[in-house]
Amino acid sequence: MKNYKPKSRLTSTAYIEGVLKGNRVLLSRAITIIESSLESDKILAKEIIQAILPFSGKSIRIGITGVPGVGKSTFIESFGKYLITKGKRVAILSIDPSSQRSKGSILGDKTRMEELANMREAYIRPSASGDTLGGVANKTGETMLLCEANGYDVVLIETVGVGQSETAVHGMTDFFLLLMLSGAGDELQGIKKGIMEMADMVVINKADGDNIRMSEMARLQYQNALHIFPLSESGWSPVVSTASAIKNIGIDTVWGEVSKYKKLVDENGYFEKNRNHQQIQWMYNNINEELKNLFYGSATIKEHLSVLEKKIVTAKISPVKAAEIMLEEFKSSF
Amino acid sequence: MKNYKPKSRLTSTAYIEGVLKGNRVLLSRAITIIESSLESDKILAKEIIQAILPFSGKSIRIGITGVPGVGKSTFIESFGKYLITKGKRVAILSIDPSSQRSKGSILGDKTRMEELANMREAYIRPSASGDTLGGVANKTGETMLLCEANGYDVVLIETVGVGQSETAVHGMTDFFLLLMLSGAGDELQGIKKGIMEMADMVVINKADGDNIRMSEMARLQYQNALHIFPLSESGWSPVVSTASAIKNIGIDTVWGEVSKYKKLVDENGYFEKNRNHQQIQWMYNNINEELKNLFYGSATIKEHLSVLEKKIVTAKISPVKAAEIMLEEFKSSF
Repeated sequence: MKNYKPKSRLTSTAYIEGVLKGNRVLLSRAITIIESSLESDKILAKEIIQAILPFSGKSIRIGITGVPGVGKSTFIESFGKYLITKGKRVAILSIDPSSQRSKGSILGDKTRMEELANMREAYIRPSASGDTLGGVANKTGETMLLCEANGYDVVLIETVGVGQSETAVHGMTDFFLLLMLSGAGDELQGIKKGIMEMADMVVINKADGDNIRMSEMARLQYQNALHIFPLSESGWSPVVSTASAIKNIGIDTVWGEVSKYKKLVDENGYFEKNRNHQQIQWMYNNINEELKNLFYGSATIKEHLSVLEKKIVTAKISPVKAAEIMLEEFKSSF
Repeated sequence: MKNYKPKSRLTSTAYIEGVLKGNRVLLSRAITIIESSLESDKILAKEIIQAILPFSGKSIRIGITGVPGVGKSTFIESFGKYLITKGKRVAILSIDPSSQRSKGSILGDKTRMEELANMREAYIRPSASGDTLGGVANKTGETMLLCEANGYDVVLIETVGVGQSETAVHGMTDFFLLLMLSGAGDELQGIKKGIMEMADMVVINKADGDNIRMSEMARLQYQNALHIFPLSESGWSPVVSTASAIKNIGIDTVWGEVSKYKKLVDENGYFEKNRNHQQIQWMYNNINEELKNLFYGSATIKEHLSVLEKKIVTAKISPVKAAEIMLEEFKSSF
């Protein structure tokens, strides 16, 4: 690979110093390098990440999910502005492995959060593009580290729930927020199984006007439901509240709960334990994904697998035997 | 490996014919071969499985889980006897990767289900032993196929929820049953996150005597909670009922719901779709586990990983970089 260096690139020292000094332009340019697929940029990216690593980790990381139509952008705009009035600097990122195909369905357009986008204390960055969730998650994760080193106190990571993206966001954040609507049941069709149980907090959005009573009912229903879930390792019992992001109602409650959570997990040691676990898991996720890529990346293997799938379904071969055959084929390819 | 053949072994044809003719002794002996780690038995096992494969799959497979103390053995005894009165032949298996260490904590003793164990229409087999969940799950899965080919109409697969065993059981059964107790909340500590959402049915056991009113309350609470879960791909809404296994109350309701479920998924095509998916997934689970074994099985890699874990936690190396280093090491070992 030719070590081609795009002419607009600075030295790694320039990016590192810029990021650490809170320079916004250099933060953006450093993220662009993280997202780049050029070999020379990858080397540069590693130098930058390595240098800023000790200065990362100081924000509270909040994952936010909810089906389209739940009002995520409005909520984030309202929540972000509230945090800024509290003296916070807020970075807003997203994980959306489909962004390349759908041309930025999520945060692709800063006009979705127009006011917030114009505030100096906010930094909005659309989802990195990429083919695999793992690749996109790596880029978002490293972008988060850069934002923290740049001085952001709160990082909001949004997802629309494509593939396993909620799990990825849950795996890199401290607090997981699920936005819902009243009218329990129907709107849940879009939420995948298991997401409810990940939530540290459920916010019933659009609780305004004629919707207030319904939202309060939904709140009680969810609160009862979450109550019977097994307790999380954090020791935190998930809470449910109502909010109207568009009218800025109930936004303070969300931050209040996040703060209570932070106090609890700081005191009981879960915060640090979970952060360490997440960082280590990040390595293992990369290893496991790469192992699968090694295997499934081969065209011969892919072809053979689809033949075996048909044989399995018609009871011509047992799944265990099929797996053995494929592994022999894989091993002999080295 | 020396092709040593234990002297008590028959030819594969003898086992195959015995299993297909409903011979109980040969079923047991065939399962022993499946569970054996002798190379000659492994070859024999493959021949047997391959031959009986087209005759398997005709039972309804029911997964059963619940924390210790919930009354699983009593429930299975009562449920099994009920099914036999309905003219069914019932096989009872279990997945418990800890059975080797705990010397058969689960189904290790047929006296747990004394009456059922003495019935000709019931077949009880304790969990295969093994170090990995994947290995144990393979053996239980193949045992299930043998039982089906032997003529059992209902296969109950029990788990106590060690590691990922509920997920394994869920992945090889048609219907997933969660046993609970009244006194909502506390007893849930033992149930892992995500299990509630897997359940097709929740049965509040020990609903007798003074416990009836509490159990009915618990039933309503769980029913409300499950109601707000996302609908399963099967189109089935999970149901909650009460039962007293020891007094044989509510056992007919369980079978009634299983039958309703079966009718629904037969009609909407989910039954076949899910079975096919499970069989194919079985192959992929084996492949993915074996890929991980290839990597994590190396002592050098293990040692290096624990060094890197420490470096990650102290922010000396980024998780992405650490994964890259390990993969390079792995690739260069071939």
